[in-house]
Amino acid sequence: MLGNAIIGQSGGPTAVINQSLVGVIEALTHAQKQNKIGKILGAKHGVRGIIHSDFLTLDNLSADLLERVAQTPSSALGSTRDKPDEAYCHQIFESFKKHNVQYFFYLGGNDSADTARITAEMAKANGVNLNVYHVPKTIDNDLRTTDHCPGYGSAGRFVALAHMGDDADNRSLKGIKINCVMGRDAGWLTAASALARFDENDGPHLIYVPEADFNEDKFIGDVDRIFTKLGRCVIAVSEGIRYKANDKKSLLAEKIMQGGEVDAHGNRQLSGSGALADYLTNLIKDKLGNLMATRGGGTVKLRVRGDTFGYLQRSFPTIVSETDAPEARECGRLAVQYALTAPNGLSSGSVAMKRVSESPYKIAFFPTPLDTVARLTKPLPAEWIKDGNDMTAAYMSYAKPLIGPLPRPGKLF
Amino acid sequence: MLGNAIIGQSGGPTAVINQSLVGVIEALTHAQKQNKIGKILGAKHGVRGIIHSDFLTLDNLSADLLERVAQTPSSALGSTRDKPDEAYCHQIFESFKKHNVQYFFYLGGNDSADTARITAEMAKANGVNLNVYHVPKTIDNDLRTTDHCPGYGSAGRFVALAHMGDDADNRSLKGIKINCVMGRDAGWLTAASALARFDENDGPHLIYVPEADFNEDKFIGDVDRIFTKLGRCVIAVSEGIRYKANDKKSLLAEKIMQGGEVDAHGNRQLSGSGALADYLTNLIKDKLGNLMATRGGGTVKLRVRGDTFGYLQRSFPTIVSETDAPEARECGRLAVQYALTAPNGLSSGSVAMKRVSESPYKIAFFPTPLDTVARLTKPLPAEWIKDGNDMTAAYMSYAKPLIGPLPRPGKLF
Repeated sequence: MLGNAIIGQSGGPTAVINQSLVGVIEALTHAQKQNKIGKILGAKHGVRGIIHSDFLTLDNLSADLLERVAQTPSSALGSTRDKPDEAYCHQIFESFKKHNVQYFFYLGGNDSADTARITAEMAKANGVNLNVYHVPKTIDNDLRTTDHCPGYGSAGRFVALAHMGDDADNRSLKGIKINCVMGRDAGWLTAASALARFDENDGPHLIYVPEADFNEDKFIGDVDRIFTKLGRCVIAVSEGIRYKANDKKSLLAEKIMQGGEVDAHGNRQLSGSGALADYLTNLIKDKLGNLMATRGGGTVKLRVRGDTFGYLQRSFPTIVSETDAPEARECGRLAVQYALTAPNGLSSGSVAMKRVSESPYKIAFFPTPLDTVARLTKPLPAEWIKDGNDMTAAYMSYAKPLIGPLPRPGKLF
Repeated sequence: MLGNAIIGQSGGPTAVINQSLVGVIEALTHAQKQNKIGKILGAKHGVRGIIHSDFLTLDNLSADLLERVAQTPSSALGSTRDKPDEAYCHQIFESFKKHNVQYFFYLGGNDSADTARITAEMAKANGVNLNVYHVPKTIDNDLRTTDHCPGYGSAGRFVALAHMGDDADNRSLKGIKINCVMGRDAGWLTAASALARFDENDGPHLIYVPEADFNEDKFIGDVDRIFTKLGRCVIAVSEGIRYKANDKKSLLAEKIMQGGEVDAHGNRQLSGSGALADYLTNLIKDKLGNLMATRGGGTVKLRVRGDTFGYLQRSFPTIVSETDAPEARECGRLAVQYALTAPNGLSSGSVAMKRVSESPYKIAFFPTPLDTVARLTKPLPAEWIKDGNDMTAAYMSYAKPLIGPLPRPGKLF
């Protein structure tokens, strides 16, 4: 009896995780026709669907439906925030035995890679035949080993486009504008705002990421300098910026929320709240207003606004990166090929990308052991952060091909 | 000596106000070649540029630059928040005399139409030859006389696409999600979220606009009903929702901010702050959490998030409506034609649109007197609002052709 294959999606959705899903389904359908696998099952809401045997049958789906699913953002199988421990993984493993699952494809970030790793090791220890492949996805771009992560290019494109539009807006009606971007632990997504710039004096003029310590006095000094020069300032800030006190790094957003200054409930979720942007907006009004008053300007009324991009960044339809979508699809297809052929003896693993050429941009795919992707994450390299408030040219060369070409704005002055 | 023409842009930018600008420039360039007008001047930052003689010369711009400008969101000439009174209009009038301006094209909303009206009347009273045409633009869609306003279709498209993505996101990771949409006085833009729905149970499940009184108890009851049915709920809320107390309507956002519960500075700007979304998020956590606990569930942890779309709505590049862009361009071109030919004796006026056919969608343009557009605005018709929390099919038929076709999402369950 042929072993069945199961697919699950996990964690925060992206605009192209369904491309990977469809890539897996397409390759499995091909394998099914060649009598290499049994049924193709979809687990609803990731590992949660697996332990509750809550499955969809993904056999014989029409090419038209699959193409529409591929182009739809977010996780078509449903996602989960569950992070399985050993006991949970044991339930997954038991469900696989019960449903004769021999191939498991898990689409997600580093936590999902760890779930895949534990499950694969459990199977091996019990002498059960189970090939597990992790398919990378995350807008955070923080997985190790791979050059970049499917999902990052499209979310980065959103962030760059949003800053292009917002900079044009700010040029037209001058003032100080703060944009809070997702990324609790890594600044990759916020960094993509740098790609919005075409000409000198284009915004964002300042970029703050979690990898560089955030200092409020330096921040106000930075804003003052730009505002004095240009009469305006556009600022990209990661929701995960950290300040340093007593040699300990702490999230600024948590400090604000814990202090009860904004959120009466002490909620600490960073996304889905405008608290950090509102805090920084008021900080600028206060400190920069006072600073300008001391220079003899009297009371100064500054036009300061803060936007928090929120969930739009990861699920906005129709602006997917033309690099990101096919790469995500290919990662899905290759996960199946690797699971069936076990290249270099890797019957379980993750699909990774290597940049073989910078110009023209070219990627090679390869299988990598699960423990090279699981758990630990990859921050922005320190050498790609400039003066604690900008990105270097090296980052720009790295990221440009990932988000795809942007339309050059037309300016009259 | 031929009279010169001057163009200005005013108020909040849109994604297509530069289409109108380029339409005006193209038509004026044509008239210039026919020796009908003198120089083509652009006023930097609207009326402010006019009274300070801060002009750009817009003669002989390349077609390539003009096309790029047309496709760039926001106001390429710069915008202003100045709302001229009689004395200010007198300065405008004096500047026109000084610079031999015979044609004035002002791109903006109802305030700009009023500036145009006062200036035109002043010229007439002084026996000065001045033709003034207002070119409509506003994402708020609240101008009288015209069927709809250039700028609305593209901003509405952003709001609909954002809700399509966000609904897919919410389906994948269930919870309650609030999206705050721009529109201080009218709910047109928030209403466009209704177009995100393709199938039953698609979100947004609830839509609140300023034209319907907002009641917190009814709101919580609405959310409870949807959440109990679907296990999730996506809500579109206008930043301008009003509650009624002592027969007086007041902005909820102002109440929140005045109360100092969120913004320590008592700032009352509605856009550029996450205060309303955060307030409603906490309200749901509190009240619905308690409500569910009284039903015997013990302490209930609800996943509630709030996003505020902010300035992205009006300036996001690359997702312009395919109806909106050419209409905005045509309004600009026709403003010049009307100013030069004075149809029906209207040497000054505004360009308006009439819907001559619903299916297929077809528009006719016509000139209308400035006082039919200036000052007063047009709210959503009461009969297009359903149960105080949704839009009717009639609204959907009206708005669908304006935002252009949306990709049908692919779903697996």
